[in-house]
Amino acid sequence: MTVQAVMFDVFGSVVDWRRGVAAAVAEALPGVDAAAFADAWRGRYQPAMAAVREGRRGYVPLDVLHRENLDATLSEFGVTAPDPVALNRAWERLPPWPDAPAALARLRRRFIVAPCSNGSIGLMARLARFGGLEWDCILGADVARAYKPDPQAYLGSVAALGLAPGQVMMAAAHTDDLRAARASGLATAFFPRPAEHGPGRAADRAAAGDWDVVAADMADLAARLGV
Amino acid sequence: MTVQAVMFDVFGSVVDWRRGVAAAVAEALPGVDAAAFADAWRGRYQPAMAAVREGRRGYVPLDVLHRENLDATLSEFGVTAPDPVALNRAWERLPPWPDAPAALARLRRRFIVAPCSNGSIGLMARLARFGGLEWDCILGADVARAYKPDPQAYLGSVAALGLAPGQVMMAAAHTDDLRAARASGLATAFFPRPAEHGPGRAADRAAAGDWDVVAADMADLAARLGV
Repeated sequence: MTVQAVMFDVFGSVVDWRRGVAAAVAEALPGVDAAAFADAWRGRYQPAMAAVREGRRGYVPLDVLHRENLDATLSEFGVTAPDPVALNRAWERLPPWPDAPAALARLRRRFIVAPCSNGSIGLMARLARFGGLEWDCILGADVARAYKPDPQAYLGSVAALGLAPGQVMMAAAHTDDLRAARASGLATAFFPRPAEHGPGRAADRAAAGDWDVVAADMADLAARLGV
Repeated sequence: MTVQAVMFDVFGSVVDWRRGVAAAVAEALPGVDAAAFADAWRGRYQPAMAAVREGRRGYVPLDVLHRENLDATLSEFGVTAPDPVALNRAWERLPPWPDAPAALARLRRRFIVAPCSNGSIGLMARLARFGGLEWDCILGADVARAYKPDPQAYLGSVAALGLAPGQVMMAAAHTDDLRAARASGLATAFFPRPAEHGPGRAADRAAAGDWDVVAADMADLAARLGV
């Protein structure tokens, strides 16, 4: 089956969430270890979504979870934020990895290109405007009303395009994401982001052959997909 | 409240559905009155959505309704289509009104710009690629799982942006659409498309003062919004 659309994981794969969040924290909370705060805030991400995935809580957009997690992290660090609403918007102002904007533009010449992120449509739209990321549409949690790696997050996004799973490729720097996408029948592409977690903490790697495409970065992915 | 996003009706307001559908019909069904067929096909649009709006049928994407309506219209005209799947994709290949692409690009400098259409995300994404329409995201029926003028179609789209209704402007060439958007608290902008229904059939008009903005066309709308 021919791939017609490429969907991207965003946080960590297309944008550098750690650097962006730490920069916002450094500005809002002087005296706090900004990188440690960013890691702690992000550390609450999977547990918060688990409540939705496991049905203990109805679907709420990630902006709501980010805000709850911010409040918990502020408590953990024993600090208060002068404007927590503004600080929560750190997730809408994350720098793209340098190769991302041009690679997306290249891929759009042949493919429908969309994020399949756990971020809300509003968050993704503002993040795209901030970073110069051009998408054909925004897919993912808000469209499917399910959080990755719930199969519905992938299948609901594929259905919104009117395509079959095998006509859509999931591209990410995270093997868990790709494993779930593959289990739902999507094509898969891996590219590493070795600096995602900062110095001294390993990021995901993949061997050639683990996924349909294994690329060095997004520019290499575009080349391997022939655009 | 300051408007942060402008949402557009698409069929008739941004693209010329009648000319695009008639061209596809003329190619697929030689000997048929293509404009009459386009009008008959489109004539089944509101009744088909009414079943969903009134709860007699669960939400299905517009592509499904278009296809059912195509089959009914083929029967009405006593003809068969060699490839009805391909003919149904006529709705993905509609010419924009000439001012639309540049006006959207201008508006995006200041506002989040999105369709709020009854078309599915896949249909809207392919239509945008065909016509060179650049959106920040795709909102509307598929996101809200409701068809305009159901209030949920507007409110679900606004919620997906994380905004309040008064922060979003609905822009359309159709007064019914704007009336429903206004009832849900959105700002409203009207611009006429006098040729929407072809020669001899009137299109909607509005007097200055009927809506928050009344413009001559989309280029004028951009100018009136200061971009």
